[in-house]
Amino acid sequence: MPSSFMQKLRDRWQQADTLLCVGLDPDPAKFPDAFVADEDALFAFCRDIADATAEYACAFKPQIAYFAAHNGGEAALQRLIAHLNATHPDVPVILDAKRGDIGSTAGQYAVEAFDRFGADAVTLNPYMGHDSAAPFLQRNDRGCIFLCHTSNPGARDFQELPVDGAPLYQHIARTIAEEWNVDGNCALVVGATFPEELKVIRAIIGDMPLLIPGVGAQGGDVEAVVRNGRTADGTGLMVNSSRGILYASMDADYADAAANAARSLRDEINRYRN
Amino acid sequence: MPSSFMQKLRDRWQQADTLLCVGLDPDPAKFPDAFVADEDALFAFCRDIADATAEYACAFKPQIAYFAAHNGGEAALQRLIAHLNATHPDVPVILDAKRGDIGSTAGQYAVEAFDRFGADAVTLNPYMGHDSAAPFLQRNDRGCIFLCHTSNPGARDFQELPVDGAPLYQHIARTIAEEWNVDGNCALVVGATFPEELKVIRAIIGDMPLLIPGVGAQGGDVEAVVRNGRTADGTGLMVNSSRGILYASMDADYADAAANAARSLRDEINRYRN
Repeated sequence: MPSSFMQKLRDRWQQADTLLCVGLDPDPAKFPDAFVADEDALFAFCRDIADATAEYACAFKPQIAYFAAHNGGEAALQRLIAHLNATHPDVPVILDAKRGDIGSTAGQYAVEAFDRFGADAVTLNPYMGHDSAAPFLQRNDRGCIFLCHTSNPGARDFQELPVDGAPLYQHIARTIAEEWNVDGNCALVVGATFPEELKVIRAIIGDMPLLIPGVGAQGGDVEAVVRNGRTADGTGLMVNSSRGILYASMDADYADAAANAARSLRDEINRYRN
Repeated sequence: MPSSFMQKLRDRWQQADTLLCVGLDPDPAKFPDAFVADEDALFAFCRDIADATAEYACAFKPQIAYFAAHNGGEAALQRLIAHLNATHPDVPVILDAKRGDIGSTAGQYAVEAFDRFGADAVTLNPYMGHDSAAPFLQRNDRGCIFLCHTSNPGARDFQELPVDGAPLYQHIARTIAEEWNVDGNCALVVGATFPEELKVIRAIIGDMPLLIPGVGAQGGDVEAVVRNGRTADGTGLMVNSSRGILYASMDADYADAAANAARSLRDEINRYRN
């Protein structure tokens, strides 16, 4: 039986015909004027963007760092995810947190992500190995999305080091696909900025979903991402855009501009799916 | 000029004659009865432990996951670090958070650790490479303590994979020592449960400090850790104990018991320093 995060994601791909993930990285310095004196700005801005873009989204991905930088940020994040779950119950919520620690501590982080914040899935850093992932994996109705090959320039520093003739990230992809994904609740993060690597990873992991950051502000190519990353049925991807949607306009039309940016990227992705 | 975290740590090693790091991982299920109905228990328990053990501590290390699992946990952590900075200004505070993300997000996490919580240093996961560390490294009055070889069983899964004939963790240690530590504000996490690895890492990194979790509950051997990990002057280590100090007694004498456990471990460490 697929985990409920996975079922929700697959249903959403099919029913809403979209592979777009809307990233919620609220930076007050970039907010429209309407939010300047708004004490609830973190929540209210993200809510407006989410409500405007939900019909084009296969997932929402709030980035916890943008909340954790502020006093009261966790309450805003909690309120935001509660709103998303209530208003858009068919759209899974991924908490982007990249957690990873020894088992006893990881158990606390699993409570943070799944119980306190109510996320359907969380991003995780695999460097500390299986027992650091186990408290998340055991919550098998939720999704565990592990860093594999990230979108930033530093991805080359360690992730590409050669291990037995293949780069480290391929070894990690294989270990997670073959050993950690027993309950079918795993996915991987692979950056759009390395489309050739995406093709290799897809060949290693079968139909496991991929979360793809790095289109838009980071420069990833949508056509290459979709052609190299999709599964045989034309799904398998959550192509994330954050800044390109959130800050499409800083004027009063920010929500409409976000909706237009989301629809446009959804359509561009769909052009290359089949 | 050494960073102020590094200066504070070195001064503390010398002046208090201790290499003991007191880990603050508050788990309400293990608290003494006095805290059962206390709304401020996270803060109050950690404050009592810290005040009782400060004279034996070269550093305090609150683990953010144990706060983040609870509503209001961040306010308790903030209050705790403010108390530590005010009452024990000579003891540096390490926020154990194991953060790591792309540069723009890492910048938010640096604000979280250093500005919102006021920590002197933070633990970081190096898997995403140099640009993910840069926003922390640039705050060069603060310390950046990177995961190298961790104390848990899963440390073997990826950290020991062979890269050009040596394990991955050695490559990471060398890269951080030779390329990332330009301002002298870096340290590494190396688990006490792998003392042979500790000797190899010390040979690679020179005098860079090591944060050593894994003595006590996790089973690391103090003598092997100190003999293999110390620098030539008998310092270079922050040997962490959390559960062995925090939960030395669940009765009314919890603070005295914590102080005794801390003094005893400080003395055991010192026995092998020279």
